[in-house]
Amino acid sequence: MMIPVWFIAALWGALWATQAVAASTITEPTRVTGRPGYNQPNQYLTGQTVKLADNMEPVINNPDQAAEARQKLSALQKRAGKRPNVVIFLLDDVGYSDFGFNGGGPAVGNDTQDVDRIASQSLILSSAYSQPSCSPTRATIMTGENMAHHGIQIPVMYGQPGGLAGMTTLAALMSRQGYTTQAVGKWHMGENTASLPQNVGFDDFRGFLSVSDMYTEWRDPQYNPEVALSPERYNYILNLPFNKSDVHAAKGGQLENLYEINADNIKDLDQKWLDYTVGFLNRQKDATKPFFLYYAPRACHYDNYPSDYYRGRSAAHTNYGDCVVEVNDIFRKLVDTLQANGELDNTIIFFGSDNGPEQEIQPAAKTMFRGGKGSTWEGGVRSPFFVYWKGMIAPRRSDGLFDFADMFNTSLSLAGLPGADLAKAIPSTTYIDGIDQTSFLLADKGVSNRKSIFYFWNDEVSAVRVDEFKMMFKAQLPDSVNRMGYNGGFAGTVGQAWTAMVFNLYSDPKEEESVLARHTPLEVFLLAEYRRYLAVLKKYPPRHQLSVK
Amino acid sequence: MMIPVWFIAALWGALWATQAVAASTITEPTRVTGRPGYNQPNQYLTGQTVKLADNMEPVINNPDQAAEARQKLSALQKRAGKRPNVVIFLLDDVGYSDFGFNGGGPAVGNDTQDVDRIASQSLILSSAYSQPSCSPTRATIMTGENMAHHGIQIPVMYGQPGGLAGMTTLAALMSRQGYTTQAVGKWHMGENTASLPQNVGFDDFRGFLSVSDMYTEWRDPQYNPEVALSPERYNYILNLPFNKSDVHAAKGGQLENLYEINADNIKDLDQKWLDYTVGFLNRQKDATKPFFLYYAPRACHYDNYPSDYYRGRSAAHTNYGDCVVEVNDIFRKLVDTLQANGELDNTIIFFGSDNGPEQEIQPAAKTMFRGGKGSTWEGGVRSPFFVYWKGMIAPRRSDGLFDFADMFNTSLSLAGLPGADLAKAIPSTTYIDGIDQTSFLLADKGVSNRKSIFYFWNDEVSAVRVDEFKMMFKAQLPDSVNRMGYNGGFAGTVGQAWTAMVFNLYSDPKEEESVLARHTPLEVFLLAEYRRYLAVLKKYPPRHQLSVK
Repeated sequence: MMIPVWFIAALWGALWATQAVAASTITEPTRVTGRPGYNQPNQYLTGQTVKLADNMEPVINNPDQAAEARQKLSALQKRAGKRPNVVIFLLDDVGYSDFGFNGGGPAVGNDTQDVDRIASQSLILSSAYSQPSCSPTRATIMTGENMAHHGIQIPVMYGQPGGLAGMTTLAALMSRQGYTTQAVGKWHMGENTASLPQNVGFDDFRGFLSVSDMYTEWRDPQYNPEVALSPERYNYILNLPFNKSDVHAAKGGQLENLYEINADNIKDLDQKWLDYTVGFLNRQKDATKPFFLYYAPRACHYDNYPSDYYRGRSAAHTNYGDCVVEVNDIFRKLVDTLQANGELDNTIIFFGSDNGPEQEIQPAAKTMFRGGKGSTWEGGVRSPFFVYWKGMIAPRRSDGLFDFADMFNTSLSLAGLPGADLAKAIPSTTYIDGIDQTSFLLADKGVSNRKSIFYFWNDEVSAVRVDEFKMMFKAQLPDSVNRMGYNGGFAGTVGQAWTAMVFNLYSDPKEEESVLARHTPLEVFLLAEYRRYLAVLKKYPPRHQLSVK
Repeated sequence: MMIPVWFIAALWGALWATQAVAASTITEPTRVTGRPGYNQPNQYLTGQTVKLADNMEPVINNPDQAAEARQKLSALQKRAGKRPNVVIFLLDDVGYSDFGFNGGGPAVGNDTQDVDRIASQSLILSSAYSQPSCSPTRATIMTGENMAHHGIQIPVMYGQPGGLAGMTTLAALMSRQGYTTQAVGKWHMGENTASLPQNVGFDDFRGFLSVSDMYTEWRDPQYNPEVALSPERYNYILNLPFNKSDVHAAKGGQLENLYEINADNIKDLDQKWLDYTVGFLNRQKDATKPFFLYYAPRACHYDNYPSDYYRGRSAAHTNYGDCVVEVNDIFRKLVDTLQANGELDNTIIFFGSDNGPEQEIQPAAKTMFRGGKGSTWEGGVRSPFFVYWKGMIAPRRSDGLFDFADMFNTSLSLAGLPGADLAKAIPSTTYIDGIDQTSFLLADKGVSNRKSIFYFWNDEVSAVRVDEFKMMFKAQLPDSVNRMGYNGGFAGTVGQAWTAMVFNLYSDPKEEESVLARHTPLEVFLLAEYRRYLAVLKKYPPRHQLSVK
């Protein structure tokens, strides 16, 4: 026998009610589903895309916000008398939750109040995606291609061949657009001559060519006693053809080795590079040409060496925490310098990290997501990220999809190569995975112009994200070798899904439960988007500049 | 043979160096270790404590910040002509990372921009600790005692006896200090007559006496078909002596059952309670008496019923996300009302959640920490928390230790019962676990006045935190029954450490690695603090108002 329980309950309620109270609701509703700039549901199905060229990703057409952005830019250009400066500030191995603006900061023992303050005046993007590791991400920014396409799929180590040689880079195109181009800090996009910064479009470079641990790890008895304390091995590594210096180079010129980096002086690199950059910025004060600055600190790569002043200065008292504090101050100093020089209003600044935290070495990495560097779990590719442009970008948070490749198109759009004009500037055989996000950033309530994110494992698609859903085909999983089960980093083997896993990243930001069984409708558009891109990869196949293949 | 590797490297460096570059460093250092208000290392060892009374926790003596706070308060009181209003806004089951101000918000599909905006004008506390579940936390706020001392160690369910009866409550003392006292929303601190809000110090109460799921779950065929569709069981639960209505009560008076709550009208509770509260606030406009408002929405308790207007309105499209958006708007409305009434400048607002997210029901709960509700992992007790007081509290983030019990002492201090005066107002047999944090909150660079946090499992100490270190004796662990291994919530059995686990919460916010083996010095002061409190518990033993014992 079925009891109509709601009916009984209603009767019971009527019996008990001793006083009627007029129920009113909020009379001035202020929320609208899908309100631009914050909620962005159904971007995939409702956003009308346009394909600007065969070799470019489709872009959602948002004419109103595009008009708003154009108007803002035009007004600014009248005031500034030149195109805007572009700064990309790219950290190493820093996690989503490391800064106060994402819930970390003092909670994890890092004083990041200046970065937090500037972030609070910026567009904070919670879904800005890097590639899973260092060189692949950097090359994506520099080429607008994801790692399958640009082909730098693993970090450049110990002078391995392969790099940006032969590619049309962001620096070269910015230079062609009349920009002064400066790179500072970590390069790590190839050490062969044709891949060096001064040969791929930068007017000037100061920094090192590889990655922090290349300079010290092999000769550090604390971490690599097997090499450092074995003369034969030590000499073998020492004589490998990789550059071991802090270097300088001017466009088209030779590398100048300033001095060899060692475990004593490595800690001073970030301060030296900061000074060099402040000098550069001061020379740009009131320059007629705009500039493009690509600034990549050594910090906070996992081996971490804070400069003397910062040693022990974080509440965490760790080298890592100290470097985060140092980075906070470095970033503040750059912004202060731009401000003092009167260039801040005319400068867009992208702030991010090249990949998630390195979990093999810092297991309890600071990300609220699953996994870390080297994996396509969210923790590996979701960057702490904001875009700051004083007076031009409305401070807010958005979960609009943003791929690091979009920095390529967006920077060039601001430099005068918007939309299809960019396609004309690159070889027709090169597929541009980035899209122009200028209107997303600049319109006060701008939404992303991007429909999807693709995640890569070497030259293959590991996963695709559409709106808040992620369909995953290959994923790093804990196994009996990787007993700590970090599910990311460079440990863990890659598991292939029987069909596919589907995660709801809003309900399940930690990717703990595939929901496909009760969410089969999602399969329709996730698979459609996946297959669209497989066709792209067929027509514009993966390259292998630096690859395990 | 040992090779002096550093010597070789230095020689090599000298050989390679082709250009000397003057290395300068940042010339104006702005960071000082332990700078008040942000970094707070060594609070435990350097902070001089005072014991105001035998039955009160020791307090760090910070005379300078205390003077600054007193000066601010005195100036305000001259302007306002009365003591400050106090509002405690307490959510249900909401996680640390649910709001944008802690890295969530749009990242997890919740539009929380108003809460985020207000948080950005507040002191955001990243180490504000609740008890592990609902009733224990609420009773802690109301009594200033942790759950071992006040004895409400489990949630009050289905009319169980036990509650605040006989205790000296925050409401009663605020009332004694001349405040109008109002409670709205979820009570859940006892349904027996002597424990009801109108009998423990509140002038007025509007809300329900229990917890959201008591009103619907047992009669909802979707979740409890075994009861809802079985007439015998249904009637048994129906006839239990627990109140099933939205109720009203005035001081010392009888409960008025307004109407019975059911699965249809439960969704309207938060809007009705908001309206009621706005009415209350409007009546307080320019009142000569200050007020104390304890506001506890139904949301976002895991069963979640957004009101019609909010259904589907979050980008997440989940009941939970919709309720978070609704809460955002409710909080904004309260602040706007205070502003419109000219009372905002004279009102301190505590914003928090009663415990971590409920992981058994929402497994991928939004906290960057380990575990959830019902556990003493950080995810169970670390609340999204800020204190807002326009013009009085400097916006910033701090990891200074703050126990929910501190709301008791701090509110009463603001109401005119600072320090030892409070001890005189309570029975000498009652131990006050809270401390007065007025100066921490109000001094522009205030630091916490608290040395440690104690975590409780029923009436026992589960863990103690000092600075960034947590020594854990008993912890919920994944096991073969709880195969998902959420390590929190109400699943998992409690494991007893062989001696103790020690976590560094800065380096390891997810509590994945006990570091005691290489950090034995930590044992000295962690054990000292633990033993100090064991002596307190011996002198002021646990009570069992509502307990599994």
